[in-house]
Amino acid sequence: MESRLKMLAELLPEYADSALIVSKENRKYFTDFVSSLGYLLVTRKEAYLLVDFRYGEAAKKNAKYCTVITYTNLGNTLRDIIYKNSLHDIMLEGSAFTLNQAASIDEIVKSACASTIKSSELDKIISRMRIVKTAEEVDKIRHAQLITEEAFNETIKTIKEGVTERDIALELEYRMRKMGADGVAFDLIVIAGKKTSMPHGVPDNNEIQAGDFITFDIGATVDGYHSDMTRTIAIGGVDEYQMRVYNTVLQAQLNAFDAVKDGATCNFVDNAARSYIYQAGFEGCFGHSTGHGVGLEIHEAPSVAPKNNFVLHSGMVITIEPGIYIPDKFGVRIEDTVVVTNEGCINLAQLPKELIVL
Amino acid sequence: MESRLKMLAELLPEYADSALIVSKENRKYFTDFVSSLGYLLVTRKEAYLLVDFRYGEAAKKNAKYCTVITYTNLGNTLRDIIYKNSLHDIMLEGSAFTLNQAASIDEIVKSACASTIKSSELDKIISRMRIVKTAEEVDKIRHAQLITEEAFNETIKTIKEGVTERDIALELEYRMRKMGADGVAFDLIVIAGKKTSMPHGVPDNNEIQAGDFITFDIGATVDGYHSDMTRTIAIGGVDEYQMRVYNTVLQAQLNAFDAVKDGATCNFVDNAARSYIYQAGFEGCFGHSTGHGVGLEIHEAPSVAPKNNFVLHSGMVITIEPGIYIPDKFGVRIEDTVVVTNEGCINLAQLPKELIVL
Repeated sequence: MESRLKMLAELLPEYADSALIVSKENRKYFTDFVSSLGYLLVTRKEAYLLVDFRYGEAAKKNAKYCTVITYTNLGNTLRDIIYKNSLHDIMLEGSAFTLNQAASIDEIVKSACASTIKSSELDKIISRMRIVKTAEEVDKIRHAQLITEEAFNETIKTIKEGVTERDIALELEYRMRKMGADGVAFDLIVIAGKKTSMPHGVPDNNEIQAGDFITFDIGATVDGYHSDMTRTIAIGGVDEYQMRVYNTVLQAQLNAFDAVKDGATCNFVDNAARSYIYQAGFEGCFGHSTGHGVGLEIHEAPSVAPKNNFVLHSGMVITIEPGIYIPDKFGVRIEDTVVVTNEGCINLAQLPKELIVL
Repeated sequence: MESRLKMLAELLPEYADSALIVSKENRKYFTDFVSSLGYLLVTRKEAYLLVDFRYGEAAKKNAKYCTVITYTNLGNTLRDIIYKNSLHDIMLEGSAFTLNQAASIDEIVKSACASTIKSSELDKIISRMRIVKTAEEVDKIRHAQLITEEAFNETIKTIKEGVTERDIALELEYRMRKMGADGVAFDLIVIAGKKTSMPHGVPDNNEIQAGDFITFDIGATVDGYHSDMTRTIAIGGVDEYQMRVYNTVLQAQLNAFDAVKDGATCNFVDNAARSYIYQAGFEGCFGHSTGHGVGLEIHEAPSVAPKNNFVLHSGMVITIEPGIYIPDKFGVRIEDTVVVTNEGCINLAQLPKELIVL
């Protein structure tokens, strides 16, 4: 039983003797095996990965640190394990089980004279484990980031007036995957002109025009790990006001970088960016948090938000992504992903941040 | 309140006065509005769509048949509606709510002196509604299918020995999206050689070789509706045994087509394909069902399976996809998507099924 599974077994609360995990990300985290469906049952001494016939062979070959069982009848297999290990109180992964799934499992568990515990406690335990990344995990995020940058550099060469946001996003994704990414980290955001004033715009057939800002919020995945980066570039040229907004966001981001280090709180980092933006006269134009954790999920703990006094530690990976959004005009966001260190942080992005004007 | 919402209100069981829907597909089905997050509360008289600030504007403009409310505090908004409509028993969508989501909603609902009902009943009611497609829905599936075929025709022209499965899959997806698809209906399956003996293979860097079968299980989405098609083609040439297997699958599929019509049961259709394959000497080589419903989800009711005596009705859309899988050698599957009619069925695919040899 590998150290992650051992740690989980040790972190189980007293009232539980086991945990049942169904989310893809957490099955991957503990066993390094990916499948669309599977049940990872972790007791204080053992771990069992239950998969159906589709994954049996691959799981036996590739899943680590656990006993793989190919089930034909989930109920029978689960009951056997419950009896064999004398389990009584099985915690369910509350963020991943649907009500219907939980109801089926409940029936099985009851028929084996045990019961389930439904809460968010297991999610919290695993989230706290996943929040600090190993060097190997950081390397995967860095690799995904490198692909993202190369795809970005190649794609912006092809941009000219009249090209649509949708086409740019598609070209980016195609290049990332050609370069070896598993896929995109999320639906890529490529939005231009007035649409950049919305933090969550969706690419459509809007055509690029001279004078536009284009916001790219993009990322790739490599072996399940996500990268996340935002760049805002300009087409044709920018006016003084656009430049002022751009430089304000950039300086806010640099201030936040300076605030990041082992021991700093999330709200301290958030405030480093936020107060600069507010003092520059853009209060009310920065409605979201400064950042979030990144790893097996694109958004994970910690939230780098105004009210979160969670303390950052070395090895955590977070985004720093302040923005200014001027309603009905334009918006600017600049985002990098960094690893927290004892002295400060290491930026996983290599891409320069001076405004690119095409 | 449009007919679908009205029908849902009428189909609510006596013990419930409302339903809370969170799945993307069902929110789309009832309101024609898509967002990553949202709550659709349907009472016997009204329907409310609750969205956050990201979607407020778009939902007010585009969501149909319901009152759109942009919430800042979900609890307050939900409590207001519960009081205003004197709701007491709110059914939750059991296939979509996670345990954690349900726990938060429970707290809110309890604080408004009401309670939730957790079961799969609401899922069943909606599934029964969605199972028969309107002409408009069929048109979207047909459109997605047309894109799939065009992308297939263009892509197979580029296939030669040494190309990888992964690259072919990527080219297919790129073309579908260029042609206007929202995206792919599922992770495209393009597998070659021995891998075709696995119904659920995943494309990787396996290179195409002479003598290979290649199985394409592919589909696109258009406005949320999915297409689903499988073709098996050959590279260089085929031997007599491969040809015999191919023709057996093809005849099995044609037999199943002949069996489909309003009033036929799912197992009758399944058996039309299955018995032919078994009698041809391939019992044990066809381990999956003959088909499934297709619509807003790639797999939905009904299951065209040996034990399902569900009766097909005009307007249902199902796949017909028999296959023969010879372990460690090769496999063949041929799949089309059809609409059930009074007289038989209409194939939404236009693509010929004679074996293509490149």
